[in-house]
Amino acid sequence: MIAIITDHGSDELFMGVLKGSFAELAPDQEIIEVTHPINIGDVYSASCITERLACHLPKSTIFLTIVDGQNESARRPIVLKTKDDRFFIGFDNGAFTMPIERFGLRQIREINIPKVKFSLSFTRSVLDILIPVAIQMANGKAYEEIGNIYMTFYYLKHKKSSFEDKKIEGEIVFVNDLGDLSTNIPFEYLTKIGLHNEDKLKINGKNASIMLDRRAVRKTELTVCEGLGGYLEITANYAHASKILNLSSKSEIVLEG
Amino acid sequence: MIAIITDHGSDELFMGVLKGSFAELAPDQEIIEVTHPINIGDVYSASCITERLACHLPKSTIFLTIVDGQNESARRPIVLKTKDDRFFIGFDNGAFTMPIERFGLRQIREINIPKVKFSLSFTRSVLDILIPVAIQMANGKAYEEIGNIYMTFYYLKHKKSSFEDKKIEGEIVFVNDLGDLSTNIPFEYLTKIGLHNEDKLKINGKNASIMLDRRAVRKTELTVCEGLGGYLEITANYAHASKILNLSSKSEIVLEG
Amino acid sequence: MIAIITDHGSDELFMGVLKGSFAELAPDQEIIEVTHPINIGDVYSASCITERLACHLPKSTIFLTIVDGQNESARRPIVLKTKDDRFFIGFDNGAFTMPIERFGLRQIREINIPKVKFSLSFTRSVLDILIPVAIQMANGKAYEEIGNIYMTFYYLKHKKSSFEDKKIEGEIVFVNDLGDLSTNIPFEYLTKIGLHNEDKLKINGKNASIMLDRRAVRKTELTVCEGLGGYLEITANYAHASKILNLSSKSEIVLEG
Repeated sequence: MIAIITDHGSDELFMGVLKGSFAELAPDQEIIEVTHPINIGDVYSASCITERLACHLPKSTIFLTIVDGQNESARRPIVLKTKDDRFFIGFDNGAFTMPIERFGLRQIREINIPKVKFSLSFTRSVLDILIPVAIQMANGKAYEEIGNIYMTFYYLKHKKSSFEDKKIEGEIVFVNDLGDLSTNIPFEYLTKIGLHNEDKLKINGKNASIMLDRRAVRKTELTVCEGLGGYLEITANYAHASKILNLSSKSEIVLEG
Repeated sequence: MIAIITDHGSDELFMGVLKGSFAELAPDQEIIEVTHPINIGDVYSASCITERLACHLPKSTIFLTIVDGQNESARRPIVLKTKDDRFFIGFDNGAFTMPIERFGLRQIREINIPKVKFSLSFTRSVLDILIPVAIQMANGKAYEEIGNIYMTFYYLKHKKSSFEDKKIEGEIVFVNDLGDLSTNIPFEYLTKIGLHNEDKLKINGKNASIMLDRRAVRKTELTVCEGLGGYLEITANYAHASKILNLSSKSEIVLEG
Repeated sequence: MIAIITDHGSDELFMGVLKGSFAELAPDQEIIEVTHPINIGDVYSASCITERLACHLPKSTIFLTIVDGQNESARRPIVLKTKDDRFFIGFDNGAFTMPIERFGLRQIREINIPKVKFSLSFTRSVLDILIPVAIQMANGKAYEEIGNIYMTFYYLKHKKSSFEDKKIEGEIVFVNDLGDLSTNIPFEYLTKIGLHNEDKLKINGKNASIMLDRRAVRKTELTVCEGLGGYLEITANYAHASKILNLSSKSEIVLEG
């Protein structure tokens, strides 16, 4: 299985060509794509989506994260191997920061390409460098043959969530079309500050509850639940949590029990 | 083949995880998804889409309708078998009302799960209960082994279309991005009130015609044609029928010959 | 592999039925779809997308271009064979104008159907005539058995790009959600007027540069690069090129070295 995470999803011609390449050269591979929640150039979001998707897909999945960063080495094509033997293909732009935190880093190799190709456009770099390597790996090419070991790599600075006594601090990672807020807070932090299902809490000072079944919740009431990857999500019953809390991506949140 | 009908289509991470599960555990199954026309929590629309899609897919297709209802039993996971041996997997929230009307009900079974799992969030209920059953059935598990027979079930009240003399009454079921209106009126009702191709009629008092080829129609003129599932659709040539008629989902319509 | 290019992508029920047909009757075929960039009834855009996608997919791909034209013969179903043995299925509405220019025309055959079916609605024509032929061809039916040779066919008038001395004239073909502009100008025309990577140029009088790596470009600066199918694309670094240049689909552009 090949999972594609990209901010280029609205370019359907590009996606068509990309999927056509896999259909031709790795026809037995299932292709899973996650495209819309990622804003153009938002490497951190791409990194979070990659990690969360990886939590729920088999270890043998090859991940391909296609997003264009701004750092010096953001066009160096790499393959990353985690401690639990997952493979991630992309550029050295920080997109694998969250997978590294989750699964641990074993090694990175730089994809071996002729020097001249470094001046390629982003789209060309993806189609001419990343896709062929993904196809080769899907067809059995050994990770060790991809290129040399890559020692320095670009790691995104990012705020980590934390808890203390009756308080959890974190930030919003995505907001979906429905106004649901996905955070960087592990859901289990609630237990660590002594909160359980049906308890009340405050999110940035506003009342909310922990309710797994929304039928038990009043309309527009804020609730928290466990989302994909085990992260805490904030929703409002038949309402936009993002509007109620006036929060967007990167906003800080404080939960108090 | 597995057909997924859901109002959660804009949550691409959820859809990615869902499709990843099928790709891993039922890799030979083709996956067909219909997501965008369904508003969040609109069980009736999900029911209509499920029925219409089923009219055009092979009987062996396993249908999975993922929408969160508000009735008391809306988290009870069920598998429904129709008189013509089609299978529909979902919750007891009324989402199979229209498939039952179309194909007839043979039996419903409640998916057998540990009691504790009833408090799961909606997303978890889908990923942990519905998907595994869909995969088991795709891999040959017998319907009878899914769980016990489920006798009471939730059925949506809905307005039925009717005809009399020169008049048909019905309602709008969906409006698509182009302003085309899909109704709950079987197209054959036109014949029953004596109308045929190229005849004129009135829709809520406005002039329209029955024209199968829009090249014969003036710009912005309203026309009716046969849509998927054999239902009557209203379109306007290079214009928005919904704006011309000022109609939206659930609006009542009267057609007069 | 079957590639579907259509302006009906937002009708998910239609697309679901269409993909269900292929899944049932040609289950080994990979399906690639490109839908969103095409406005309803925009045959020229569909033609350009078909050509560009074809440049990057294997020759054995069967192309199915589904768009409803307004010319007299726009419901005649045809199969086109190019000089390099590619097959394109669709209607005689001009949608294969650009593939013919690119790959050359060998022959067109009209799909043999009972006369009565000509009065079908567009959706029905696609599902009942085009799809079965695509499935038959995917399963090995010979092109020669599709129907009789079709001698007259509808060809779209369209503006061609040209170059002279230090000047290139062309037009915008698509604008994507990001404001990137795709043109009808072959990228190699730049070389023909003596321009190379890192050179400066003017687009409709505004400053731009040829830069393959956007990290070398100032924010909002216009750049040109080679897009899919080898056509010149205009982008602005972290900005909307279409807004900066005030251009949309069909706008004329002049590039000066």
